Amino acid sequence: MFAMKHSRRRSSAWSSYTGSSSEDDDVSPREKIQSNSKGFADFCVRNLQQHAFGRREIEIAEQEMPGIMALRKRASDDKPLKNAKIVGCTHVNAQTAVLIETLAALGASVRWAACNIYSTQNEVAAALAESGFSVFAWRGETEEDFWWCIDKCVNAENWQPNMILDDGGDATHLMLKKYPAMFKLIKGIVEESVTGVHRLYQLSKSGKLTVPAMNVHDSVIKTKFDNFYSCKESIIDSLKRSTDIMFSGKQVALCGYGEVGKGCSQALKALGCIVYVTEIDPICALQASTDGFRVVKLNEVIRNVDIVITTTGNKSVVTREHMEKMKNGCIVCNMGHSNTEIDVKDLRTPDLTWEKVRSQVDHIIFPDGKRIVLLAEGRLVNLSCSSVPSFCASITSATQALALIELYNAQPGRYKCDVYLLSRKMDEYVAILHLPTFDAHLTELSDEQAKYMGLSKTGPFKPNYYRY
Amino acid sequence: MFAMKHSRRRSSAWSSYTGSSSEDDDVSPREKIQSNSKGFADFCVRNLQQHAFGRREIEIAEQEMPGIMALRKRASDDKPLKNAKIVGCTHVNAQTAVLIETLAALGASVRWAACNIYSTQNEVAAALAESGFSVFAWRGETEEDFWWCIDKCVNAENWQPNMILDDGGDATHLMLKKYPAMFKLIKGIVEESVTGVHRLYQLSKSGKLTVPAMNVHDSVIKTKFDNFYSCKESIIDSLKRSTDIMFSGKQVALCGYGEVGKGCSQALKALGCIVYVTEIDPICALQASTDGFRVVKLNEVIRNVDIVITTTGNKSVVTREHMEKMKNGCIVCNMGHSNTEIDVKDLRTPDLTWEKVRSQVDHIIFPDGKRIVLLAEGRLVNLSCSSVPSFCASITSATQALALIELYNAQPGRYKCDVYLLSRKMDEYVAILHLPTFDAHLTELSDEQAKYMGLSKTGPFKPNYYRY
Amino acid sequence: MFAMKHSRRRSSAWSSYTGSSSEDDDVSPREKIQSNSKGFADFCVRNLQQHAFGRREIEIAEQEMPGIMALRKRASDDKPLKNAKIVGCTHVNAQTAVLIETLAALGASVRWAACNIYSTQNEVAAALAESGFSVFAWRGETEEDFWWCIDKCVNAENWQPNMILDDGGDATHLMLKKYPAMFKLIKGIVEESVTGVHRLYQLSKSGKLTVPAMNVHDSVIKTKFDNFYSCKESIIDSLKRSTDIMFSGKQVALCGYGEVGKGCSQALKALGCIVYVTEIDPICALQASTDGFRVVKLNEVIRNVDIVITTTGNKSVVTREHMEKMKNGCIVCNMGHSNTEIDVKDLRTPDLTWEKVRSQVDHIIFPDGKRIVLLAEGRLVNLSCSSVPSFCASITSATQALALIELYNAQPGRYKCDVYLLSRKMDEYVAILHLPTFDAHLTELSDEQAKYMGLSKTGPFKPNYYRY
Amino acid sequence: MFAMKHSRRRSSAWSSYTGSSSEDDDVSPREKIQSNSKGFADFCVRNLQQHAFGRREIEIAEQEMPGIMALRKRASDDKPLKNAKIVGCTHVNAQTAVLIETLAALGASVRWAACNIYSTQNEVAAALAESGFSVFAWRGETEEDFWWCIDKCVNAENWQPNMILDDGGDATHLMLKKYPAMFKLIKGIVEESVTGVHRLYQLSKSGKLTVPAMNVHDSVIKTKFDNFYSCKESIIDSLKRSTDIMFSGKQVALCGYGEVGKGCSQALKALGCIVYVTEIDPICALQASTDGFRVVKLNEVIRNVDIVITTTGNKSVVTREHMEKMKNGCIVCNMGHSNTEIDVKDLRTPDLTWEKVRSQVDHIIFPDGKRIVLLAEGRLVNLSCSSVPSFCASITSATQALALIELYNAQPGRYKCDVYLLSRKMDEYVAILHLPTFDAHLTELSDEQAKYMGLSKTGPFKPNYYRY
Repeated sequence: MFAMKHSRRRSSAWSSYTGSSSEDDDVSPREKIQSNSKGFADFCVRNLQQHAFGRREIEIAEQEMPGIMALRKRASDDKPLKNAKIVGCTHVNAQTAVLIETLAALGASVRWAACNIYSTQNEVAAALAESGFSVFAWRGETEEDFWWCIDKCVNAENWQPNMILDDGGDATHLMLKKYPAMFKLIKGIVEESVTGVHRLYQLSKSGKLTVPAMNVHDSVIKTKFDNFYSCKESIIDSLKRSTDIMFSGKQVALCGYGEVGKGCSQALKALGCIVYVTEIDPICALQASTDGFRVVKLNEVIRNVDIVITTTGNKSVVTREHMEKMKNGCIVCNMGHSNTEIDVKDLRTPDLTWEKVRSQVDHIIFPDGKRIVLLAEGRLVNLSCSSVPSFCASITSATQALALIELYNAQPGRYKCDVYLLSRKMDEYVAILHLPTFDAHLTELSDEQAKYMGLSKTGPFKPNYYRY
Repeated sequence: MFAMKHSRRRSSAWSSYTGSSSEDDDVSPREKIQSNSKGFADFCVRNLQQHAFGRREIEIAEQEMPGIMALRKRASDDKPLKNAKIVGCTHVNAQTAVLIETLAALGASVRWAACNIYSTQNEVAAALAESGFSVFAWRGETEEDFWWCIDKCVNAENWQPNMILDDGGDATHLMLKKYPAMFKLIKGIVEESVTGVHRLYQLSKSGKLTVPAMNVHDSVIKTKFDNFYSCKESIIDSLKRSTDIMFSGKQVALCGYGEVGKGCSQALKALGCIVYVTEIDPICALQASTDGFRVVKLNEVIRNVDIVITTTGNKSVVTREHMEKMKNGCIVCNMGHSNTEIDVKDLRTPDLTWEKVRSQVDHIIFPDGKRIVLLAEGRLVNLSCSSVPSFCASITSATQALALIELYNAQPGRYKCDVYLLSRKMDEYVAILHLPTFDAHLTELSDEQAKYMGLSKTGPFKPNYYRY
Repeated sequence: MFAMKHSRRRSSAWSSYTGSSSEDDDVSPREKIQSNSKGFADFCVRNLQQHAFGRREIEIAEQEMPGIMALRKRASDDKPLKNAKIVGCTHVNAQTAVLIETLAALGASVRWAACNIYSTQNEVAAALAESGFSVFAWRGETEEDFWWCIDKCVNAENWQPNMILDDGGDATHLMLKKYPAMFKLIKGIVEESVTGVHRLYQLSKSGKLTVPAMNVHDSVIKTKFDNFYSCKESIIDSLKRSTDIMFSGKQVALCGYGEVGKGCSQALKALGCIVYVTEIDPICALQASTDGFRVVKLNEVIRNVDIVITTTGNKSVVTREHMEKMKNGCIVCNMGHSNTEIDVKDLRTPDLTWEKVRSQVDHIIFPDGKRIVLLAEGRLVNLSCSSVPSFCASITSATQALALIELYNAQPGRYKCDVYLLSRKMDEYVAILHLPTFDAHLTELSDEQAKYMGLSKTGPFKPNYYRY
Repeated sequence: MFAMKHSRRRSSAWSSYTGSSSEDDDVSPREKIQSNSKGFADFCVRNLQQHAFGRREIEIAEQEMPGIMALRKRASDDKPLKNAKIVGCTHVNAQTAVLIETLAALGASVRWAACNIYSTQNEVAAALAESGFSVFAWRGETEEDFWWCIDKCVNAENWQPNMILDDGGDATHLMLKKYPAMFKLIKGIVEESVTGVHRLYQLSKSGKLTVPAMNVHDSVIKTKFDNFYSCKESIIDSLKRSTDIMFSGKQVALCGYGEVGKGCSQALKALGCIVYVTEIDPICALQASTDGFRVVKLNEVIRNVDIVITTTGNKSVVTREHMEKMKNGCIVCNMGHSNTEIDVKDLRTPDLTWEKVRSQVDHIIFPDGKRIVLLAEGRLVNLSCSSVPSFCASITSATQALALIELYNAQPGRYKCDVYLLSRKMDEYVAILHLPTFDAHLTELSDEQAKYMGLSKTGPFKPNYYRY
């Protein structure tokens, strides 16, 4: 499980520019004595000196995160998170910093660790520390560092956490195992990842979940944006940045036609690719057909395509056997949920030569000289070779913040010790926060219309089964 | 309710070509003595002589209805509807005839009436009668004729119905009210329309539903095809056939961004229109924004647009006030669910002149000479000014047939007296029936993959909340 | 040559609605004595009584022909065609009527005949006659009628023509052959068709052209609109109106990737078709490839496609051999320049059965029962099965009117007895006339910018070789 | 003139990854003594040690340059450039290296300099030197270095050049001015840039051109690919790499609707942007309108847009006045032909603060705190912030090579001392070389078809005025 989770790496645009030479620094942050310009020392980051750089990255992110900034503004008088004590365990990057500072503006006190040993933007962590946040995170943590950091957040002096914001379930896991008494005092957990949500449902099933939890991973608006809209753009960006290929006229095998596959196919077709789709689900296959894509088995096209992209969430979708048949120069990458889709391990054999031609780009050279271009070693190419648009991050952050507010302020008994989806109403509120970005103007129902439709004028506007 | 339902008119391509002079025939079919070439007389149609024309239309429809034809072939040995006695009450057109003859091939005995006084293709009804089906339907029935026809289907000698296939709920309504004892013997109802489904839920709520019913209106695949894919094509077709306008560069106000609005906007944009969207729902509004449409209030653009299209399902979306502001030549039409969206009644005032310039096209002339082009008098323009693609009809028909088979063959107790949605598995089966049309080849899960995903290799493949 | 030309038939939307029962009228218009409400009798039309219908069609056309209407308004004071006596020989339909009445408003006196024995909208001819125009045209002329009508226009009492507006070269031909002395007094010829232009270049080469002529067929803006934009919309419309097919997921073989092919492919792809292109020209083939289409030989895909469309201008592009291989239900139609592209004659053999299933739709039934759906008997499907957008007609008409004005007012010696293309400046003027339709606002060059670019602020803006 | 030319910087993907620390090297290459592994020393590059890296970049480029590689293969037996002695002066990058090595394979001897002081890929120059080519180029030449390098190519011992391949006209200029006798012995010049072509036409006009020259800049296929297809992809790439913005829903002002504007608008629209077009040319404006874009004056939308892109080739298209009105965060960039389109100089004023936030990205901070995001300081963003697809480079290179072959082998008298466009036939041949990339299969004319069309079966297929 960890291998999978840690293989995710959300590379920021910034780090690819700066190079982050500080990573070569061989003194562990845990051994350094650090304190910020005001003498505050309850944090652990790689290099505090980078704080000004980090602050600029945060400011740039703020510009593209209108929704969470609007929430900060709207709710900063009410302070709906007053006295909330939040343990956060997520990727630590500029967008997260915007969330953290928003939670603080809403009244919360937070302690934050990274949910991934590779994904921390050191300069951002530095900026947070300089601003007085207890952040424990750096790029290149060891496994031991990883748990040490989380522990520092959970088990602080004079600070009893009452909320958890988790991405992967590690903070939840640690607290439940190591500090069960503390865990019982938690008012709510907000979980973002598919892995963490899965763990929560298992806890719930086995009766071990003693706290209400909110599954924000499956919220309507987050799902659409993280999967369809974000992937539509990032597949283009990932392929371009890593390989500089021209899309026009390229033949692409796209494995899977869920939200991610739909987004990828739309963008690739728009830029002149010829896309073939593989599917196991007849309904998605019919959608692909009527959207104008040939639905094939991978073997039918594998000899002809220029690019193979996986978006299935399954394993062994692209096998060594497929790769044997690919033509010279074929690009292979993964947009699905983990690193299982491409059988990369079967390429680690003595008969094949690996040549790293660029960061995140390997040529796998076959005995006959044929080269396959493998991106990000089969891990998620959108996280490795492009950046996540801040706008999507804004939607995720606003969703997380609202979920925290909801659980923290809920009447006793409103939520049982179970896993909840965000209410339709809150989904709609996240959307409302983001409409001004597009200068979009909502129409309001008249009284008469609301009555005719049987709706409240302020929503929610759709039944639960609505598919958007 | 009836006014609304009857105002729907599914014009077939054929009738617009033949002119249907038979409608001018002033003898009511009920007064005619008719029998087919084999002496069979248990039917009532406008003009039996048209049967050869009708048969050709049915044959043309069969070519574009691969799914229902495949079902006919696959199941004709099993005869899963053996001894089923089905009362059908739907639009009577070539596509329905393909369904009727499929039900017969699967073993059923049927009696059929029209669910709309205008929508019958007389030549198709004639062909069905000639082939020995008890069909009671003609274009231009009176209200009294309408109920007489349904009654002839329900209350036949030596024929106790055990299934109902309804579109609008009228056969159900009549049997429940007039023949309650007969109604109790029914094994299942399959209902297609939003109106009929609404009635069934009301019956269920009030405890009066004594029969299991299947809501096929909301089945995943039918919804997508009837709303998104079908409307994508029919908005183009409706506008072109009725007005011959050029789409390139036209400015369009599109009210509503649900499935229908999404389909319309995609097609219009693809053909060079500039589309502005109005929405009440912030999530749909955000989707419109990120799909590249300005989201506005109607008043912001009403003076500039060339076309106004409603797809909301609401009332008074386009008001007289809006129409006052439209520019000369502005086209107004409705793709929503009823005739309430445009305030047509407010145009029936003495200061405005109506000039019918073509079938389904009126110019509303304002005092200053300005003309507004109103299509289908505000009724559903896709039903009035274009034809429903047979392919969509095939999906609907296959869904209905499967629902009938399911209810008819269900183990006792499997279904309670309630309204059910089609199972995901059946949805997937309808899709499977239609994939060969596109020469689409499904990928099969390996054992290992199925295990990894926790799925059966034969589906269902998605959880219920999946949004497609 | 005539067979080809006459096989073109520009069906108007109107005639497909009214049925035109007047065509069954068995008295030849030439034998009728007709005079309009003011006693004017110098015309010959089918049925003067239809004039009110025709006037309405003209008014509808005016609404979608903003450019020519703007020209009428701008130039009606100047009367740049004062004393011009124009013989017109074109399709006689509502759009032409708008041109004719514009020429009159600019000062010209005109006499008009049809350039095609099938294409006249009788009600429009009636409206023109009622308004006092000498029009000689009706649908269903015999070959003899055809030449009689042109002769009536050319050889009128007390009316010496000085300009010719021709579409196909017949008026030019007749005058040159029959009235050579009259021909010498002509100041200019404006020719619209590829056939007529070809004839003019031949006359010029052989030294027989004694008059300056303007080739408006190849003007930049007309070409783009007639070929790319118009065909983009009409391929969709033609297929839909004649066959009611659903486009989503259909596989299409498109023969030819010139302007027409580019337009067709763009629209078909946008509506969800999978398009395969055949080409002989490597540059166009490379464009197709980079636009995202597979470039194939027809035989590679002929067994799989649902639709075959020709846009080449060549002959025998689709042969009997191809049609033998097509699958059941394959639709075949022609968007190219004549009726030679599909070898229809090879389908007129005893082993095949033709069944007319709708107007302009034949099923060709093969011995094994396979049906091919042939549209418009292989003639131009966009002219037979859809209508030409008035907006395109406006561009053509404005171009013709400007060419007439230019030749009529040119300084002596400005034009030799040769064939000229419209100047870039006039092309730009036609565009200017049509921009207000789209509420488009041109940017003006500053003096400094004009100097930097070496351009006049009022154009022309591009060199002659510019490709747009 | 030089300022403009030198401000162009073709950044390679590679250099942005490696950082190129060698540039910090403070010893001028001219002062170093260098010789390759075989003792060859007739070159001058930054750092020979990088040759292995450079070779890999060349090999990667070869994979995406199928056309020039096919030419190398096809013509390597014939050696059509045997005894040709070519002075080359172009950007020195991996794609150019593929051209250089192709020219050598065809029999030519070459000497090569950079046409731009910033654009050399040092590692590629090193690879060429290691392979024995006389290359004189490095990134960061001084103005004096620049001319010294060209001189080293032109004026070599025992090596009398007979062909020039120029990009910008500098090699031509130097030879004409400094070595007029040598210039007279040149057999032909091939010029690639708009600037160089302009100079050649001026020379021709003033009678100073004593050599035939080929303008490859305006060849059909190169133009389409360099302008339309390449820019369609690079605008997306440039904006994404430099700013990480999300395209969905962004409002864009696009100045100019020529080939570049058409390409940009198509890609932006496809990815969900709302594009407004400004134009001075009414024909292009009408195309924009009918392609579905609002045509506006920049001032109408400047306050609302998120991105402003110039593609006009004009000057002062975006002025300080416009920038005053832009909203906070507005991104401004140039895709036109030089650095004149945006009035960057007017932003270099004391009241504004420039903050470099990333490479090629400046924030211009206004007194009220508003930030404008200026890319590449107003120079060509596609050259500065993205890479040129190798496929486009292949087309350019193949065109250049064919032009060299043509001029070098032409019969005496075939070409006068004038500037020529590539023949249609050669354009078609370049296309043919590139079709196999797409597995595209050309259809061949039958004898009968060729006769009907009046064409040779091997082309050329289109008249000169054809617009593609």
